[in-house]
Amino acid sequence: MMDDQSNRIDHDPEREDDPYELTRRAVAQIIHAVDQGDREQLLAEMAPLHAADIADLLEQVTAFDRRRLLKLLGGGFDGDILSELDESIREEVIQLLHPDVLAEAVRDLDSDDVVDLVEDLGDAQQAAILGALEHNDRVAIQQSLTYPEQSAGRLMQREVVMAPEHWNVGEAIDYLRNSDDLPEQFYHIVLVDPRLKPVGNVTLGRLMASRREVLLKSLVEEILHVIPATQDEGDVAYAFNQYHLISAPVVDEDGRLVGVITIDDAMAVLDEEHEDDYLKLAGVGDTSLTDKVLVTARGRFPWLMINLVTANIAASVISQFEATIQQIVLLAILMPIVASMGGNAGTQSLAVAVRALATRDLTSSNAMRVIRREALVGLLNGLAFGVIMGTVVALWFGEPLIGAVIATALLLTLIGAAVGGVVIPLTLERMGVDPAVASGPFVTTITDIVGFFVFLGIATLVLI
Amino acid sequence: MMDDQSNRIDHDPEREDDPYELTRRAVAQIIHAVDQGDREQLLAEMAPLHAADIADLLEQVTAFDRRRLLKLLGGGFDGDILSELDESIREEVIQLLHPDVLAEAVRDLDSDDVVDLVEDLGDAQQAAILGALEHNDRVAIQQSLTYPEQSAGRLMQREVVMAPEHWNVGEAIDYLRNSDDLPEQFYHIVLVDPRLKPVGNVTLGRLMASRREVLLKSLVEEILHVIPATQDEGDVAYAFNQYHLISAPVVDEDGRLVGVITIDDAMAVLDEEHEDDYLKLAGVGDTSLTDKVLVTARGRFPWLMINLVTANIAASVISQFEATIQQIVLLAILMPIVASMGGNAGTQSLAVAVRALATRDLTSSNAMRVIRREALVGLLNGLAFGVIMGTVVALWFGEPLIGAVIATALLLTLIGAAVGGVVIPLTLERMGVDPAVASGPFVTTITDIVGFFVFLGIATLVLI
Repeated sequence: MMDDQSNRIDHDPEREDDPYELTRRAVAQIIHAVDQGDREQLLAEMAPLHAADIADLLEQVTAFDRRRLLKLLGGGFDGDILSELDESIREEVIQLLHPDVLAEAVRDLDSDDVVDLVEDLGDAQQAAILGALEHNDRVAIQQSLTYPEQSAGRLMQREVVMAPEHWNVGEAIDYLRNSDDLPEQFYHIVLVDPRLKPVGNVTLGRLMASRREVLLKSLVEEILHVIPATQDEGDVAYAFNQYHLISAPVVDEDGRLVGVITIDDAMAVLDEEHEDDYLKLAGVGDTSLTDKVLVTARGRFPWLMINLVTANIAASVISQFEATIQQIVLLAILMPIVASMGGNAGTQSLAVAVRALATRDLTSSNAMRVIRREALVGLLNGLAFGVIMGTVVALWFGEPLIGAVIATALLLTLIGAAVGGVVIPLTLERMGVDPAVASGPFVTTITDIVGFFVFLGIATLVLI
Repeated sequence: MMDDQSNRIDHDPEREDDPYELTRRAVAQIIHAVDQGDREQLLAEMAPLHAADIADLLEQVTAFDRRRLLKLLGGGFDGDILSELDESIREEVIQLLHPDVLAEAVRDLDSDDVVDLVEDLGDAQQAAILGALEHNDRVAIQQSLTYPEQSAGRLMQREVVMAPEHWNVGEAIDYLRNSDDLPEQFYHIVLVDPRLKPVGNVTLGRLMASRREVLLKSLVEEILHVIPATQDEGDVAYAFNQYHLISAPVVDEDGRLVGVITIDDAMAVLDEEHEDDYLKLAGVGDTSLTDKVLVTARGRFPWLMINLVTANIAASVISQFEATIQQIVLLAILMPIVASMGGNAGTQSLAVAVRALATRDLTSSNAMRVIRREALVGLLNGLAFGVIMGTVVALWFGEPLIGAVIATALLLTLIGAAVGGVVIPLTLERMGVDPAVASGPFVTTITDIVGFFVFLGIATLVLI
């Protein structure tokens, strides 16, 4: 059976081009089973799917099919599916589940998954899920919820395997064999002092490879990375990626061990943060394909509104030069080229700066050097494209003077765009604002304004 | 000492706002030690830093300081620093190291790190590093290098802890205690059949918690996710993230176990892929802050060149309407608004589609539905902004007819942009091209062309 599964995942010929895409056929067969009302068939089709794939499936079908599928499925709903579901339809699915089914589904989850599940729910649904838990678990979840959103305290699981620092390997192994409530996955034993302060991590690999009489203390990893419960989850993800952590103890403000964060949770956060930054660069907020049309349209509206305002400012810059354009219409034809090149160059330099800030490669100690570098890059490309475009206008349109104007305008705009692309996110960062909001659209419209002004301004000075 | 380190990382008051940024002071103190030629002091300043932080430090200082620092440091260079260094200066640092120092640094690395290190080096440097390894290790690395670049075979480490499927817990523990060549970190024992085919994963946690006489077979995890050595590393990272894998066995084309990939490597790949996509959206190729100015300028040139060509096409569209603009200059003032709104809306829809393709949320089974959705979103926002901008032009400029023209143009452009933003990446994906190259600049210039044509075309029909 194990073999069949690995075969299914890796060697299905239909998946040759993309081994992990839910195939159209798999989706169709499941919907067919739903159409037929054939529960046996539905279970058979879903059995080989991982909870994450079932969640994807539920997201991809229509709301109508989703309802029918869950109704036919009845009980035996895996709690992990809820954890994997996109927030936009999680609430809908929870409402469709019978309270008993929901309670059973939630009971097997680790505490961090339950926290992740309930934190975005309405009060009634939150109460329903918390009510389904045993007393101790419920108290633990409620405690986690007292930490700020998107903090280490929300991310951690409270199930920690710890041992007093004076134990030896044999004592640790006997303890593990006799406890019946170990977390599903754990990779370290955290050594703690009598006041519950973590003093070291022992990997299970080193534990297993050592004789019973060896002291745990002598096996601890070289560096212990301790995470305060209030730390932002983005910083946690960065630390896991930077220091190749597998799990790290989380402590409260008194330095006492309160939980542990594992790399799979950190990886999910890293993935989310990247996705957010990507969408921000495109001027889109948090969004999902399963959102309703109106929700999506409304979500994109503010960015477009900002853009409309800045575009109108750019237009008003142009209108200052109405008389110039009236005399030389060629300027109106060429001006979008300057603006568009500036927008592009600015977005390039912005994206590099935002990433470098996120990876801590751009810091106060090298900021000035990076700005100078960008100015030089802008100068080089400004010269190159100035010459190219100036030549085109001079030869093709037979307007050498206008060619000289556009060359100068491109040079200045590209230097300004390159420098602005670094200075804007750096300034936002200093002000404590997320530099990723300095999105492409934002920079593009600023460079529009600069480009129109420089080009039409020089043209007016030189040509009129 | 352990405590001091955890304190250093988390509670340094200077780092309050960003716990993980290399402080300007830390950098300054190290450079000061280099200035003084004080090796003792340098070692003392560097001692608390993780290899990843030292690599960051080397990237942030100037080439001049880098050379002096490495010279003063002399021997005892940690191989992990090389692994962490950005490619752009890795080669430079390797050249600065004495061959003996280099050999010693490389010898302690896991095979996957050595592969990552040598794959981008020139032949001479590659030979120097391989020559420093013991025979068995060298052969293993050379074998890994036969796999395609960015494949699972390059990513995996060859050090695998495996056991025959008929062993029990006691046999496994005795085996681990008696082997002196275990990988630095491992989380599973891979069970294999007599032909070395992986049949199951046993987590160390379950192993430790079980009595000696329990069969390993009864402890295997529910799902075994096997990765072919030729699989693309992006798909590997997706699988780790989607299925919350911690480690997964890698097999050759005969299904035999050849290595193992762990989640920290998958996380690094995920991070890189995200970074690539982010930079592509901004029209920047693979880049680094430590690249030389000329390299950077040349790297950004192609995208700007493409943009120059498309901007010229947009300009030639405008020039078709020269006579119209000559008569009504207001059109030249307003036309960038239409283009810019279209570019924005198109980039929004593009970014959402590219991400959804990457996360396999957008598939052949829901593509049509998503396109329809985007068209509706474009329609709604097109109506909204058409009304807003039409009213502004009608009331503010006192030109109701031009107001009607811009309203219609915005409506059509925003619908087109929203649909194009999905259709372009979907088409690229079908053609086997990475949809992430359908960058923001690309879509922006296309929407420029559409916006100018629609706006000026309608204006010519209606007003002239």
